[in-house]
Amino acid sequence: MGVRILVTGGTFDKEYNELTGQLFFRKTHVPEMLGRGRSRVDVEIERILMMDSLDMTDADRAHIIERCRSAGERQIVITHGTDTMVETARALAEASIEGKTIVLTGAMIPYVFGSSDGLFNLGSALSFVQVLPPAVYVAMNGQYFRWDGVRKNRDTGYFEAK
Amino acid sequence: MGVRILVTGGTFDKEYNELTGQLFFRKTHVPEMLGRGRSRVDVEIERILMMDSLDMTDADRAHIIERCRSAGERQIVITHGTDTMVETARALAEASIEGKTIVLTGAMIPYVFGSSDGLFNLGSALSFVQVLPPAVYVAMNGQYFRWDGVRKNRDTGYFEAK
Amino acid sequence: MGVRILVTGGTFDKEYNELTGQLFFRKTHVPEMLGRGRSRVDVEIERILMMDSLDMTDADRAHIIERCRSAGERQIVITHGTDTMVETARALAEASIEGKTIVLTGAMIPYVFGSSDGLFNLGSALSFVQVLPPAVYVAMNGQYFRWDGVRKNRDTGYFEAK
Amino acid sequence: MGVRILVTGGTFDKEYNELTGQLFFRKTHVPEMLGRGRSRVDVEIERILMMDSLDMTDADRAHIIERCRSAGERQIVITHGTDTMVETARALAEASIEGKTIVLTGAMIPYVFGSSDGLFNLGSALSFVQVLPPAVYVAMNGQYFRWDGVRKNRDTGYFEAK
Repeated sequence: MGVRILVTGGTFDKEYNELTGQLFFRKTHVPEMLGRGRSRVDVEIERILMMDSLDMTDADRAHIIERCRSAGERQIVITHGTDTMVETARALAEASIEGKTIVLTGAMIPYVFGSSDGLFNLGSALSFVQVLPPAVYVAMNGQYFRWDGVRKNRDTGYFEAK
Repeated sequence: MGVRILVTGGTFDKEYNELTGQLFFRKTHVPEMLGRGRSRVDVEIERILMMDSLDMTDADRAHIIERCRSAGERQIVITHGTDTMVETARALAEASIEGKTIVLTGAMIPYVFGSSDGLFNLGSALSFVQVLPPAVYVAMNGQYFRWDGVRKNRDTGYFEAK
Repeated sequence: MGVRILVTGGTFDKEYNELTGQLFFRKTHVPEMLGRGRSRVDVEIERILMMDSLDMTDADRAHIIERCRSAGERQIVITHGTDTMVETARALAEASIEGKTIVLTGAMIPYVFGSSDGLFNLGSALSFVQVLPPAVYVAMNGQYFRWDGVRKNRDTGYFEAK
Repeated sequence: MGVRILVTGGTFDKEYNELTGQLFFRKTHVPEMLGRGRSRVDVEIERILMMDSLDMTDADRAHIIERCRSAGERQIVITHGTDTMVETARALAEASIEGKTIVLTGAMIPYVFGSSDGLFNLGSALSFVQVLPPAVYVAMNGQYFRWDGVRKNRDTGYFEAK
């Protein structure tokens, strides 16, 4: 049945505006990334938000939950800013979506910057979602964590077990 | 206990010799790739071969089998040329190494070429190896296959179920 | 006698801080860029400032002028932020430094972002400085302009004759 | 009147065939490179050959000479494989094309490999052609050489005065 990829933005998809020197969102790079990875996973990509996760509201999270709930697929990857990824994971877990494996992932460096961790993380999240039992997880740094067992270390930028 | 990564070469690690215009092996890029992916997986990297998989002999495969057997870790990723990856997977399976999850992966484009699928594949293989039950697998194109259920389609370069 | 390259910072040398999402200066990338370009030009690289050109003060410009005046070389390239590049060019021209060809260049996109115009601009500036007669110039977008005949179009980011 | 860019192939434009592991020609990357360099030079790009310069015949060189002679522009850049660049430069010089500045350039590493010297060389050649007096030149490694004063050092890959 394949994997649904819900795109919400985050550093993953940020680009550099050469006129202003600011980072901004223009489009999602997930299709291009899957192309580079030569992915053959049956995916449906749905862009539902395009934002910095620090700006995410309860209404935004309700929207993410609703899209997970109504998705036909039982395997869902969500690309998400890292700053509040754990918070969204918790909201999803508390929504008690039955029978679905949901994996959140993101990047610390924009994909377009060349040196990004995004391609590694996308390969990782897409792999974990195919084999982990139903629940909500965060996949970062090559590892996976259950939603209630992870925190982002803001000093190092790494996700770690708590 | 962590993951052992056995490096055998393959397109993954090929570089371009600007004087001759030929591809060659110099060193493995796996540590650099894990750095870019900001991986925090506990890994032990062991370079055991550095070759094109078309040149791999039975003796080379026996060496790979021996390194898998003697490894203390129960999770092993092998970076390998794609041309004979399935053949090495079969040799490993026939060696009946008990209690270990072994995942072979590779790349169609050298990591140093920028547009490589290698980072995606490494993220994928490292994830699959942490969650799949003991057996020998190939992880390519975002998917995993049991050793006896996969072939490389030489016309497309994709790995597919057989 | 070679070319002196005076590094003052600018977008050229900006990097991305993955923890804060901000751009910052750490080191100059000019030596690495010359390596990539396989440059064999006899250069002396001198880092005199490392700043955004919008923050540049009269004292900073006086320092640049002093370094140009005291340099032994008669060919000088200055890497500089684009926002006030023309202003610094004017200050240099008004300082009446005799017998020296001074070329300012910069980038709209940081070198480390992969898609940067920096390598092209550095190749261009280094070439113009070897053949243009003594005066102060701006080299951007593959073109050169005398200091008093150029402006940056802030809407397009291109430098154009005025 | 602008610059005519005659594309003949060379390492500049080589790509990697991931199925065969061979390098091949598909299209020229010169327009994309000028875009990355944010070039505003008035150029006319003409693809006349797409080949390895080791395979270049007298007929190919006659074709290049003819295109230079008939070009309306007085400034011509030729992208060319490095192996016989000097030989083509000599053929052009011996053809005595009046009143035109012709600059040959190339790359040691394909543009698509990310680590290429091509963007630097293109910026350099395009700059030299705008300011050098009529004659035939080679622009490599940030330097320019008259056609009769240069050789490629095959051990180092650098062009040097002879």
